[in-house]
Amino acid sequence: MARIVMKFGGTSMAGIERIRTVAALVKREWDAGHEIAVVVSAMAGDTDRLVGFCREASSLYDPREYDVVVSSGEQVTSGLLAIALQAAGVPARSWLGWQLPIHTSDAHASARIGEIETDALNASLAARIVAVVPGFQGVSDANRVTTLGRGGSDTSAVAMAAAMKADRCDIYTDVDGVYTTDPRIVPRARKLQKVTYEEMLELASVGAKVLQTRSVGLAMKEGVRIQVLSSFVGEDGAPRPGTMIVGEEEIDDMESQLITGIAHDKNEAKVTLAEVPDRPGAVAAIFGPLATAGINVDMIVQNVAHSSGSTDVTFTVPKADLARALDTLEKERATIGFAKLIHDPRVAKISVVGVGMRSHAGVAATMFETLGARGINILAIATSEIKVSVLVEEDYTELAVRVLHTAYGLDAPEVVAA
Amino acid sequence: MARIVMKFGGTSMAGIERIRTVAALVKREWDAGHEIAVVVSAMAGDTDRLVGFCREASSLYDPREYDVVVSSGEQVTSGLLAIALQAAGVPARSWLGWQLPIHTSDAHASARIGEIETDALNASLAARIVAVVPGFQGVSDANRVTTLGRGGSDTSAVAMAAAMKADRCDIYTDVDGVYTTDPRIVPRARKLQKVTYEEMLELASVGAKVLQTRSVGLAMKEGVRIQVLSSFVGEDGAPRPGTMIVGEEEIDDMESQLITGIAHDKNEAKVTLAEVPDRPGAVAAIFGPLATAGINVDMIVQNVAHSSGSTDVTFTVPKADLARALDTLEKERATIGFAKLIHDPRVAKISVVGVGMRSHAGVAATMFETLGARGINILAIATSEIKVSVLVEEDYTELAVRVLHTAYGLDAPEVVAA
Repeated sequence: MARIVMKFGGTSMAGIERIRTVAALVKREWDAGHEIAVVVSAMAGDTDRLVGFCREASSLYDPREYDVVVSSGEQVTSGLLAIALQAAGVPARSWLGWQLPIHTSDAHASARIGEIETDALNASLAARIVAVVPGFQGVSDANRVTTLGRGGSDTSAVAMAAAMKADRCDIYTDVDGVYTTDPRIVPRARKLQKVTYEEMLELASVGAKVLQTRSVGLAMKEGVRIQVLSSFVGEDGAPRPGTMIVGEEEIDDMESQLITGIAHDKNEAKVTLAEVPDRPGAVAAIFGPLATAGINVDMIVQNVAHSSGSTDVTFTVPKADLARALDTLEKERATIGFAKLIHDPRVAKISVVGVGMRSHAGVAATMFETLGARGINILAIATSEIKVSVLVEEDYTELAVRVLHTAYGLDAPEVVAA
Repeated sequence: MARIVMKFGGTSMAGIERIRTVAALVKREWDAGHEIAVVVSAMAGDTDRLVGFCREASSLYDPREYDVVVSSGEQVTSGLLAIALQAAGVPARSWLGWQLPIHTSDAHASARIGEIETDALNASLAARIVAVVPGFQGVSDANRVTTLGRGGSDTSAVAMAAAMKADRCDIYTDVDGVYTTDPRIVPRARKLQKVTYEEMLELASVGAKVLQTRSVGLAMKEGVRIQVLSSFVGEDGAPRPGTMIVGEEEIDDMESQLITGIAHDKNEAKVTLAEVPDRPGAVAAIFGPLATAGINVDMIVQNVAHSSGSTDVTFTVPKADLARALDTLEKERATIGFAKLIHDPRVAKISVVGVGMRSHAGVAATMFETLGARGINILAIATSEIKVSVLVEEDYTELAVRVLHTAYGLDAPEVVAA
């Protein structure tokens, strides 16, 4: 007997037929004797509809009332799944955020989960009743409805798993696991059996949109084992094995490989300040105002000083913030003292990720050589303990991902026709 | 300064533009310095959509989960109206059923309101904050969401008015008051300035669908003054005066008239059991099984016994229950001992209603003469202290209503073109 949290996204909850499919998946685990809490998203499209209402009512809507409105989507699906489970012969009841309760901060529309009370829940689970919990919602100390921000249901599921001391948190999505890279770019991408929290964080934050980043961070902190798998099952009704997201200690040496995956991200834009005076405080004069404006700066490259005593500074910002970033810098032109402000949104960040690179030199060198051999120019470089990222022209994105996937030995074995 | 409960139905809440119109109506009262609670229905059609989901999930849905699902419609509109009020410069907040709380019985899907806690609400009203309360919902002692049954928002509004000791409960609907009869049948029907609770109960239960019957009964019990008026306002933004529903003591003699209104109801069907043995217990043998089957019998006529020692018994049941009623009676044929079972769904009940008839004889006689003069055959008769009802063939419905409206002097003065 295990304790399992099962989480289903909006696509899995879109309509009663799909909710019945979810009920069948839950029933399989319940029949096996497990104690189960199910965390559900709103029906696909429903949250957008509700958010649209709030925006139409006022562009400056009160986030406390926004939370009342948008949390209703998950309330609906949790009640419906409880009904569908009962119809399938599985005792079930819904527990809304204020009923458990799931205590959160009062940062409405982006609240953080605090304590989740589990006494009543545990008694109910012990009585073999499946708990259906709406994701994304909680209740503040002031007894107001809160929501966690978009995609928050993954975080709800991980928090529930931590509070319940669950053996596993199964996240059902419309993909069947985490791949070595985007299979739409590399058809020979392989599904990973296991990936570490750290790797998943790097893969997620650079474009592998399988799980909300926050939920992975929480799982790492709380030691919750996550399994990502598809809610679309085969004829036997059983889901195919997905990808486990676990602590590094659970990765065998045998399984370990240098590079786990290749990610790409087209959401950054490049900004270059040419001929910035090479003196103390120059860099602070650039990045201070951007931080004040709430603009996240990612990759930063400072060239060697010119003989003139000036230098070029290049960095990336989210494309959505590019206009604001340029505006902010122009206003600081006198203080910073640059000669030219150049920008280019047509860039992509390519990252190779893997905990294995900690103990192996040469990962970066292989990357540069591989890209160089194909004539792909590297515009900037950033490295962390388990990641090397390069900025390239956007047109080279797919080529760069494919050649790196091959270079690091990630391609699945070719299937030879019989 | 007065305390006012304002209630808006689903048509008034259908979309943000209409919710803004509602906000403007609330703002008028708030600007006048009143303390205001607004009770809202779900957007028109939304409750049907949610009920449809529950039924699709299981024909035997758990009413506790049904309540979780369907109560979300009013949750959405209460949040949106709070946002729209704030945008109009009126401080407002939503109070969900479990937040006030509105305590109810645990009869899910048809719960009865118990105590409504008002301490927090009163503090909020005193701070000039408009309270927006979703109608139709409450919370049980077991901390589960409950709903009051369809149309329950009127009852929520009256219960809120009673708990708050409000001076008035204004119910905004898509009609602008209570008329002497259906204006679609009699264009010269007049809007009533005042009507008593008792009259309203009789008018509502026989077809004038302006207010939920239950809410009128509660208002009578609690002494809540209800005003029915239209949410569709003129160019000056002010609603036109509607109809006040009040205690009999508030009706002046000057205003009092013999008959207040004429109602019709096409939802009944006539059943006749021919040649029932005229012996003690015969009637109980007929109506006992129908009561057991939960079928409401309305008008009952027993003819004088035939010389053969048998009698005919005629009564009406709701059309929706006709098939079940016939089935129930056929099963009891041996016990009851009737010769023939005859039914006719093509009938209508016409009622004249008025507290004035208590002190005046001849109301029924006028009715029979008026209908007789037009050759309208009376199939059954029922009377109460303030109502006389007759059953006629359905085809005569409109004619009967029109001639009675004229006979009792209810027609509005004819407007002569200048």
